[in-house]
Amino acid sequence: MRLFGLALTTLAATAVAFTALADGHSKALESAIQARKANMGVISYHTGLLGAMAKGDTPYDAAIATAAAENLASAASMNRMVLWLEGSAQGTMEGTRAKPEIWSDAAGFEEDAMALETATAAMVTAAGTDLDALRIAMAAVGTACGDCHKANRGPRN
Amino acid sequence: MRLFGLALTTLAATAVAFTALADGHSKALESAIQARKANMGVISYHTGLLGAMAKGDTPYDAAIATAAAENLASAASMNRMVLWLEGSAQGTMEGTRAKPEIWSDAAGFEEDAMALETATAAMVTAAGTDLDALRIAMAAVGTACGDCHKANRGPRN
Repeated sequence: MRLFGLALTTLAATAVAFTALADGHSKALESAIQARKANMGVISYHTGLLGAMAKGDTPYDAAIATAAAENLASAASMNRMVLWLEGSAQGTMEGTRAKPEIWSDAAGFEEDAMALETATAAMVTAAGTDLDALRIAMAAVGTACGDCHKANRGPRN
Repeated sequence: MRLFGLALTTLAATAVAFTALADGHSKALESAIQARKANMGVISYHTGLLGAMAKGDTPYDAAIATAAAENLASAASMNRMVLWLEGSAQGTMEGTRAKPEIWSDAAGFEEDAMALETATAAMVTAAGTDLDALRIAMAAVGTACGDCHKANRGPRN
């Protein structure tokens, strides 16, 4: 019984340790989801500023457009290793629309993400050139956004 | 009376136009507030990853630390022109703790923000070196965060 008691105690301690680890891991995944949604908000804001100029809703301003494009390119180029943690997909975690394909087809996701990096880098130059250049660059940014969402974003919860 | 009627109509149309402009401006300020809070969330997340390693809560990992530092430096170096719009201070707008001093003492704010840029740029190298280097760099990042908040962040609403 004493041995059994010890075994149970050990088992309980192990279970607690596992739960603590799982809790920590789950919190890490939740934080990563919040961080990438925040970064998506940063992307969305600056895309909105550039999109409004492209549509003529706000006057073209080279300095503002360049600043927005710089921030957009920075946000789009964030290192994905610490944001897209394995195990943080829709279906496994709450509050995210990240498809499991992001991890099961990592090369495909990387390609989609790189397309946005390329399009936003081009926008940095285009934004300060003139409105026509901005509009052309904006179309490419929009395509990259749409393609990545189509392939990697799940349905609304 | 007809002239008076016309004048009133013109006045009404002008008022509507002004309201629309004001609404648009207010929305622009609200969007900027949301965007800088989102960016602050990105900063906070990556600072948290590095801070956890500095404190020994998570094991030191050079690759993860470097990725986190890169993202932190990117978020800290966002072009402030399109994020810190004049008129979006606490007291004028809801949902922000940005002190009016950010605009009334723009040079002071710029100095505080540059201190974070410098500290986070140093972190990019330190994070991949070793845990001691990360800890030293983390202290500087923490100081820059604290100094900027002390000078530029108002009380909780």
